[in-house]
Amino acid sequence: MPAFSFTIEAECSQSWARAGTVLTPHGAIPTPIFMPVGTQATVKSVSPEELRAAGAAIILANTYHLMLRPGSQLIHEFGGLHEFMRWDGPILTDSGGFQVFSLGHLRKLSEEGAAFKSHLDGSPHTLTPESVMRIEYELGADIILPLDICAPYPSSPWEARAAMERTHRWAERALAAKEGYNPEQTLFGIVQGAFEPELRRESARFVGNLPFPGLSIGGLSVGEPKETMWELLRCTTPELPREKPRHLLGVGSPEDLVIGVGLGMDMFDCVLPTRVARHGGLFTRAGRINIKGARFRSARGPIEEDCDCYTCRTYSAAYVHHLARTEEQLYYRLGTIHNLRFMLRLAAELRASIIAGTYPAFRDEFLARYTPASEQVREVQREKWKAARAHRA
Amino acid sequence: MPAFSFTIEAECSQSWARAGTVLTPHGAIPTPIFMPVGTQATVKSVSPEELRAAGAAIILANTYHLMLRPGSQLIHEFGGLHEFMRWDGPILTDSGGFQVFSLGHLRKLSEEGAAFKSHLDGSPHTLTPESVMRIEYELGADIILPLDICAPYPSSPWEARAAMERTHRWAERALAAKEGYNPEQTLFGIVQGAFEPELRRESARFVGNLPFPGLSIGGLSVGEPKETMWELLRCTTPELPREKPRHLLGVGSPEDLVIGVGLGMDMFDCVLPTRVARHGGLFTRAGRINIKGARFRSARGPIEEDCDCYTCRTYSAAYVHHLARTEEQLYYRLGTIHNLRFMLRLAAELRASIIAGTYPAFRDEFLARYTPASEQVREVQREKWKAARAHRA
Repeated sequence: MPAFSFTIEAECSQSWARAGTVLTPHGAIPTPIFMPVGTQATVKSVSPEELRAAGAAIILANTYHLMLRPGSQLIHEFGGLHEFMRWDGPILTDSGGFQVFSLGHLRKLSEEGAAFKSHLDGSPHTLTPESVMRIEYELGADIILPLDICAPYPSSPWEARAAMERTHRWAERALAAKEGYNPEQTLFGIVQGAFEPELRRESARFVGNLPFPGLSIGGLSVGEPKETMWELLRCTTPELPREKPRHLLGVGSPEDLVIGVGLGMDMFDCVLPTRVARHGGLFTRAGRINIKGARFRSARGPIEEDCDCYTCRTYSAAYVHHLARTEEQLYYRLGTIHNLRFMLRLAAELRASIIAGTYPAFRDEFLARYTPASEQVREVQREKWKAARAHRA
Repeated sequence: MPAFSFTIEAECSQSWARAGTVLTPHGAIPTPIFMPVGTQATVKSVSPEELRAAGAAIILANTYHLMLRPGSQLIHEFGGLHEFMRWDGPILTDSGGFQVFSLGHLRKLSEEGAAFKSHLDGSPHTLTPESVMRIEYELGADIILPLDICAPYPSSPWEARAAMERTHRWAERALAAKEGYNPEQTLFGIVQGAFEPELRRESARFVGNLPFPGLSIGGLSVGEPKETMWELLRCTTPELPREKPRHLLGVGSPEDLVIGVGLGMDMFDCVLPTRVARHGGLFTRAGRINIKGARFRSARGPIEEDCDCYTCRTYSAAYVHHLARTEEQLYYRLGTIHNLRFMLRLAAELRASIIAGTYPAFRDEFLARYTPASEQVREVQREKWKAARAHRA
């Protein structure tokens, strides 16, 4: 049995949506799928059992944070991330590149790789395409990503091309280095190209033709308008090989998931659902609500009437409101469980609609009903989070 | 069936320890028992299911905090605390007096009661022995406490007597007011007397003779040396009626539990086990450890080898260390579960030793092996917590 496979079970005739199954050594992943982010070897505030109960099929962990603390070697000595954090399902690790590039003056980039200083203690480190393969081998995730360069928004066409071409050279170095490590791990390629449609097409063709069993689309959702992101995806997808699963890196609000699926994406990860939950923002079919709002003070029903999550099955919205207002730790858990379940149910419904041939109607209905956070709210959040992003994303 | 009963199943022949069972409308409580504190209608960071799994038989909630937020009337409209927080076991509420008296310049004391300003929004409130009965009726706990006056340490003999006598008058007013409310709730009396052995005896006799089905010993562990507290208990217990359960208010480190049982106490509550857990202090039979310490960085075993809590059954000490060092929310839960389970197992073992007639040996062995936090560490913590205590205790 190969360590990794992807089979497509249904394709939408009116969009690029597809339903499939990714097989990994730690289990099957039905796609489309949302992947909760467990930055420091824990999805903030929830246990592995709660992740399972919410329907999580795969989670993501961050190489940058884990290499610094507790260190990839220590995790390796404990049998890898699965054993260390007691999550026996599939795991994906990023390359650490995104966080390192966000460090600004703390890092120095060259053809060899990226030298940087730890945000924790200032200690010097270097990431190269080769060292990242070693670190991710030690972490032991099922799916791993190569070091890439995420160009900032905005970037000049010249910067964008330079970053893309270096990313391509690093992709080839990563593939060569990966040979020496665990064949049970699967290395995805990363498509870049910043905000230039032509570069996105070129990168999709180049990386898509390398022997990567799956592809991640990087460098999006870094500050550009949403419409720009979708436009760039529209240029990218047609150039990607059909048979490889496609992961849209760092993207994953409810509406992004619904739209992204139609643009041919299979896998999504984002801290947004868990992060906004901790700030009181909870997802419902009608849109994002703020559970701290006075209207929930005496709300007898659950957060959402037909939600089957632990929070909604157990507690009134009034109690969740009380916990959120008093900043009780149980709130963070209850809010996180609700939003994760929302995302995972949404992914399952998207999959079912693709199989049933009704994805376009599902998408249109969802978007008509769902009120996302307004652009203004989003902007405030973006600014708030930007500073923290490099270190905590 | 009466709403409340206490039966003594065994008594130690060489100490005042006894093993019994308290019956309440929400279930039986084997004594001696430790009661986890759920100040704001939640035991910080753990769910009701986790409390049950840790062996909790009864929890405590704080009237002061709940009357201000979300308000006792709202909780009443939701069917009381049990329904609101989804804990179907017994609950005890304090009177709010302790927190109000800790408010300092924000409160004004008279024979009628205590007028104070909310620490949240400065809004004016009054607690009287009568209004506290109404508020605790609305909260709906199984065991409720009357408004009392906790004299500060140190207090002059004159202050101490004045506080005690007023507490006694308030006790009689509370008993009269209680008549109008729910007979399913049981009102305990509170023994005061500050740091004067003679006053402690007098209060024990006075309150012990009033028709309270149970008694709480108040005003201890408020800054006096431990030995003073034990000496005062030695004066108090012989004056208490044998057949009423005795609750030592706000006391509950592991060593306090072991010693307090021998001085005739049946019920204990304290934020200490959950609070120190959140700061990294975890209990083991050998004493309190600091899980953030470097020696746990690569510790493969659980926090304590023979502990049967969820944390120890599931995770290595190294992983718990990692979560604590990175201040991950899951840590607070895992540490809290461990310390609660430790306290509840300890209570169960104390009970078993009393029934087996081996309590004195168990006590001596435990105390010989267990290293509590040093007096110096304790002092630093006390200072740190003092400021926060009024508002968060």
